[in-house]
Amino acid sequence: MPRLDPQRLAEKIAGGDRRALARAITLAESTRQADRRSTLDLLKAVPGKQNTVRIGVSGPPGAGKSTFIEVFGLHLISLGKKVAVLAVDPSSPRSGGSILGDKTRMERLSRKRDAFVRPSPSGGTLGGVARRTREAITLCEAGGFDIAIVETVGTGQSEAAVADLVDVFLLLLAPGGGDELQGMKRGIVELADIIVVNKADGAFLPAAERTRTDYENAVHLLAAGSSRRHPPVLLASALEETGVDAIWRQIGRDLAALGGQDGINARRAGQARAWMWSAIDEGLRSRLTGTPSGRQFLAELEEQVAAGATTPTEAAERALDRLLGNRS
Amino acid sequence: MPRLDPQRLAEKIAGGDRRALARAITLAESTRQADRRSTLDLLKAVPGKQNTVRIGVSGPPGAGKSTFIEVFGLHLISLGKKVAVLAVDPSSPRSGGSILGDKTRMERLSRKRDAFVRPSPSGGTLGGVARRTREAITLCEAGGFDIAIVETVGTGQSEAAVADLVDVFLLLLAPGGGDELQGMKRGIVELADIIVVNKADGAFLPAAERTRTDYENAVHLLAAGSSRRHPPVLLASALEETGVDAIWRQIGRDLAALGGQDGINARRAGQARAWMWSAIDEGLRSRLTGTPSGRQFLAELEEQVAAGATTPTEAAERALDRLLGNRS
Repeated sequence: MPRLDPQRLAEKIAGGDRRALARAITLAESTRQADRRSTLDLLKAVPGKQNTVRIGVSGPPGAGKSTFIEVFGLHLISLGKKVAVLAVDPSSPRSGGSILGDKTRMERLSRKRDAFVRPSPSGGTLGGVARRTREAITLCEAGGFDIAIVETVGTGQSEAAVADLVDVFLLLLAPGGGDELQGMKRGIVELADIIVVNKADGAFLPAAERTRTDYENAVHLLAAGSSRRHPPVLLASALEETGVDAIWRQIGRDLAALGGQDGINARRAGQARAWMWSAIDEGLRSRLTGTPSGRQFLAELEEQVAAGATTPTEAAERALDRLLGNRS
Repeated sequence: MPRLDPQRLAEKIAGGDRRALARAITLAESTRQADRRSTLDLLKAVPGKQNTVRIGVSGPPGAGKSTFIEVFGLHLISLGKKVAVLAVDPSSPRSGGSILGDKTRMERLSRKRDAFVRPSPSGGTLGGVARRTREAITLCEAGGFDIAIVETVGTGQSEAAVADLVDVFLLLLAPGGGDELQGMKRGIVELADIIVVNKADGAFLPAAERTRTDYENAVHLLAAGSSRRHPPVLLASALEETGVDAIWRQIGRDLAALGGQDGINARRAGQARAWMWSAIDEGLRSRLTGTPSGRQFLAELEEQVAAGATTPTEAAERALDRLLGNRS
């Protein structure tokens, strides 16, 4: 890919050039030092956009996430919104297997002028994937997209990271007693702002209604006393294209409860601050283990700690001394 | 307090001297540099003890934690065990208010020769409190105690830290529909290895049984598909001193399922490694913000990030550059 001046690329993105947007996201996904530098310049050059909404969608395999996101996205477009869909899947290997790699799964949405569907950035560390996703959201918003939907697979650690990237987090479930949640990460229900029981149609409807009641009871019990309100449990059918408007209205109520745009901005500012601190932690760790001798040193420390020969605190002090010497 | 040679102190602790143990824990609670050094020497000098069990107990105010721990501890002593009780409460102010400050709440247990009840280390950061608790557990085990019970208040962030310090984590609840969980931290149920509905006696018994069924259903739904098994929900009455033996047997089954002492040791080794990495993060942060100019620099960075003038990643790189310069 020939190098493009970040300023020029930013102008093209702001002008609605989708190929420039795709190219910018690819640039942000690169780990090469020169590309990182260009990405940071680009992120400074692109315009900010107000009144955007960032929505996370997760759920176990079989909940029908792709079909739901497609129908939900088409509904938002029918309301005059421009919708970007991004995927986070740190577990997927570099070639194939990514949850949106098979773009045809959102064929109807992908064909829309007001939609931008981006396959999963492949592989990498959780921190790296989350960073790239955060930057991709910013770039999509600069490109004029009002709503960014971030999809995760629900089986890994990425959900907590995605919950910290979005304004509202949806958990999508299939009807049933819970046994079909096989592989879903424990703790994910705690992250949900809204729970959606999908496939509430035809013969599945009674089971969907039971599932809704079960989850309403469960979240009442488990969120009791929390300052956050219990997540509401809504029904939807991607097949019959029902329920998506009620979900969108619930998102509107959630964001209004945050205090409108000011509240959203304050929450995003807090997320950005927290993000800075994790990036500091991650940067330090990568510098500690960035050389063969560093990795060797840390591996030996870990071994001593695991064997009880060194306390974790003392090992940490030795690691910091190695990195910082007497500068600290 | 006159300085004591760590080697000498370690010998006294190993000999069962309870005043030496109390003194060592006070030393470990100190943040003075010289005391930290002595503590590290002491921790290296004390003998390790095999076949210990570390139990976390949490729950909302009103669940009856202190009374339960007292009755549970007395039961363990009747089985020939030596029991240490420690408390974690990072929210408590330096003077008073700590959950075990009022020692008379465990008067019967405190009087036992085979018990050691230690009030909460007061105040401080979560990381600091967790570190001191970890060291206190090691010291109690060196002093011959077989079982360490760590109590937390259930309302803060300390539960996740304590879950990482212990072999098994108990969540104690009172009978009821969940409304009396006022103030309990969301997500705490996810940490529980065993859920205990306390006060299952007299007029409360039917409500306790309903609560058990409700939680059994809830944890079945919410833990579905997880590799960890659902936490069992047991009934107990600290008042009538019932249920504690079943809880102790359940703990035994849990530890056997871990693979006995080898499995416990492997889990503790993993906890210690994770602890080392958090201590590295925490040490770095404290060096970054340890000077007035450092705090000023970081505060300005945070402000720029919150305002969107700098990306979190770029801010992190600047913070690392400031700390590490071109040493990295």
